[in-house]
Amino acid sequence: MFEYEEEFNQYLDKIKDLVTRKRYAELRDLLIPMAGADIALLLEDLGEQYMPMLYRLLPKELAAEVFVELETDSQEMLINGFSNTELKEVLDELYLDDAADLVEEMPATVVIRILDKATPEMRKSINEILKYPEDSAGSIMTMEFLSLKKDMTVQDAFKRIRRVGGEMETINILYVTDPRRKLLGVLAIRDLLLADEEDLIEDIMDANVISVSTLTDKEDVAQALSKYDFIAIPVVDMESRLVGIVTVDDAMDVMEEEATEDMEKMAAISPSGKPYLRSGVLETWKARLPWLMVLMLSATFTGMILNHYESALSACLVLNAYIPMLSGTGGNSGTQASVAVIRALSLGEVGFSDIFQVMWKELRVSFLCGLCLGGANFIKMLLFDRLVLGNAAVTPVVCLVVCLTIMFVVVFAKFVGCSLPLLAEKIGLDPAVMASPFISTIVDATSLLIYFRFASWFLGL
Amino acid sequence: MFEYEEEFNQYLDKIKDLVTRKRYAELRDLLIPMAGADIALLLEDLGEQYMPMLYRLLPKELAAEVFVELETDSQEMLINGFSNTELKEVLDELYLDDAADLVEEMPATVVIRILDKATPEMRKSINEILKYPEDSAGSIMTMEFLSLKKDMTVQDAFKRIRRVGGEMETINILYVTDPRRKLLGVLAIRDLLLADEEDLIEDIMDANVISVSTLTDKEDVAQALSKYDFIAIPVVDMESRLVGIVTVDDAMDVMEEEATEDMEKMAAISPSGKPYLRSGVLETWKARLPWLMVLMLSATFTGMILNHYESALSACLVLNAYIPMLSGTGGNSGTQASVAVIRALSLGEVGFSDIFQVMWKELRVSFLCGLCLGGANFIKMLLFDRLVLGNAAVTPVVCLVVCLTIMFVVVFAKFVGCSLPLLAEKIGLDPAVMASPFISTIVDATSLLIYFRFASWFLGL
Repeated sequence: MFEYEEEFNQYLDKIKDLVTRKRYAELRDLLIPMAGADIALLLEDLGEQYMPMLYRLLPKELAAEVFVELETDSQEMLINGFSNTELKEVLDELYLDDAADLVEEMPATVVIRILDKATPEMRKSINEILKYPEDSAGSIMTMEFLSLKKDMTVQDAFKRIRRVGGEMETINILYVTDPRRKLLGVLAIRDLLLADEEDLIEDIMDANVISVSTLTDKEDVAQALSKYDFIAIPVVDMESRLVGIVTVDDAMDVMEEEATEDMEKMAAISPSGKPYLRSGVLETWKARLPWLMVLMLSATFTGMILNHYESALSACLVLNAYIPMLSGTGGNSGTQASVAVIRALSLGEVGFSDIFQVMWKELRVSFLCGLCLGGANFIKMLLFDRLVLGNAAVTPVVCLVVCLTIMFVVVFAKFVGCSLPLLAEKIGLDPAVMASPFISTIVDATSLLIYFRFASWFLGL
Repeated sequence: MFEYEEEFNQYLDKIKDLVTRKRYAELRDLLIPMAGADIALLLEDLGEQYMPMLYRLLPKELAAEVFVELETDSQEMLINGFSNTELKEVLDELYLDDAADLVEEMPATVVIRILDKATPEMRKSINEILKYPEDSAGSIMTMEFLSLKKDMTVQDAFKRIRRVGGEMETINILYVTDPRRKLLGVLAIRDLLLADEEDLIEDIMDANVISVSTLTDKEDVAQALSKYDFIAIPVVDMESRLVGIVTVDDAMDVMEEEATEDMEKMAAISPSGKPYLRSGVLETWKARLPWLMVLMLSATFTGMILNHYESALSACLVLNAYIPMLSGTGGNSGTQASVAVIRALSLGEVGFSDIFQVMWKELRVSFLCGLCLGGANFIKMLLFDRLVLGNAAVTPVVCLVVCLTIMFVVVFAKFVGCSLPLLAEKIGLDPAVMASPFISTIVDATSLLIYFRFASWFLGL
């Protein structure tokens, strides 16, 4: 692991130097002790000029490890340079779920080459994984799990593990199935090791298996692995037959991706799934423009409201100076509630059925916040705006109008902020898009209406 | 696993019914096949009235599993009801890292009772874990790992695993240390199973061990586990001695917590670390008010700017109607850039050294976005505001002023949005607080200044 950027840069320099001096044996010795993920980082940084040559220095197994860690465009570049034999060698070393990912991400011409060079069994399995809906457990599972029969002894099980364990993604968790592949039980390798050699699998397995279905959303799969502290979870089809497993490393990737996507949506960005510096300017522009455009155009309403009250405003122009503060405070209050609820939804802490509890909580919180903010602002307006800045137009009645508006806006904003994500979830929309920018736009318009209502009552505008 | 809320509610009803009818044996049979995490969910929902009684129905080991999954206040309530023997039983079943967590979260009076009933070794280990800084690898590691000596044979290793493996948090990964506990190598249980009985550990272990230090930030530990697809990572002290391991289930919790914290900070909420519905009204209020207050008061600047240009505004009041749109668009543009950079920072995709690359990218993206938004707004103002709404004050020059402002504001906002988080990281502040609300406040004031500058140039105000 590279603890420091410095260390990483030293490695880069050393590699470039060795390449220039054609010291391939030394290069190989330098790379071989490293982890695949680290070599991939180095290759990415060194770029196309060095990548194919360095890649070919690696032993087969390590090369495959590095390959899966590379970015999609680097993988494509490498494949395009591979001979058929080289391609076959890489494919043979890949786990099925990684191979399926690869096929999903490559352009059609590359896919044809890959499927052509894959073994018939791999081709079959890849096709099977690809037919599951995107984001389902089926699409991220691997079929390389180790299954046992219930009438095996512990000794038989060890024999089987020694025979086929090398090809499996994990042997830490073993699954017990009947002749029709129905999932009967699960056991950890530890259970086997601590049992007697003559014990029957049936007697030491845990028959209360927690599994997910092939169609379970991958986010729920990750949540389940996290909740139960599993290192793998079995995936069963509609007839309870074991078809694959999802391992914890894939679940971690899912969790990371989903959190990133939620943050992006909350910030009005269309998720791209690519690292920040990897996505081009046009790609980033495309991900950001649509929401900016929609939100900009929807601000037409606030403009219309301001135009409508133009004469009232010009009669008491001091009111105008507080509009940014009001809309900012409203937007921030709403964002707080919406982000808290969106996150709670995606962690499974709340659901639509909790809507009244959530609303009741937010009402009380927003009442307290509104009271404090309104009060603080009242004092600040009288002391600072009126006395220190000497703005005589800031009368106590003006202060009252502004502060009452704050209180109502905060309550309204938190109410909208907490309920919209729950409603979105209920009707099958993504709650994360109901965050900050969306809520701010609604709250902006509403806070103006509340403001002018109070102004007309108290100031007779 | 409860796939549906319905199923969960059916269980709740069934349990309540069985309790009322005093069918304890049936209750026990109902609970025992369930996973600890699921029972904990049920108990939390059933509340204090049922919890202690149901908890006592569980066999010791399952009870401990349930206990660690309960919320802090439920744990406290249960401990307060425990007899000394019961408390000792629970403690004996806990893993060390869970016991340390417990001690960290309980009030002092409960801690004294816990330390009193813990075994001397457990007490020593808990104290050791607690002395590491919060958020460090040391504070989340467990000391229950399995270590081997390099001159053991595979057969010796299996004997050792059978003898002590039952108490370890994981035996899937084994660590090889020298007599001074220095970490020499690592091997998976699979390597042992596939090796010959007479092989020496030294010969089959992997000597290129990736480890973290006791002081490594727990977020970096989680990232390392995710990057290398590990199920556990060794933690070493300053002298490279193995002192503990962090397992992947704890890493997942860290990732989830950190993502939640980042989202909260981005939404101007002080992180509480508690589930949404679990934190009380006052607690939520305390987490939300400070930032709202700061941001509200800092809006004083925008107010002052508007007051300063009061006469200019009253001469051309139509300009006022576009202020919310300008500040909204600016805020959203800045938020997009800042959230993208904050997330990339926390995933380790960018660092401060990339600041010029990031700025150059954002400049180009913001130029394109500004051009499109300005252009679209120009057309919208002329066609809709002027022609459809018949607002004669919206002259082409006014449109030009508004649209030029948009372009400059978008560029400025994205520039500030991308650079502030990187600067914050550099000087040791949390980049996540440099998000939406903070950026909006800066952008609000600046966009007004840009607006009035253009207005005075083109409209002579």
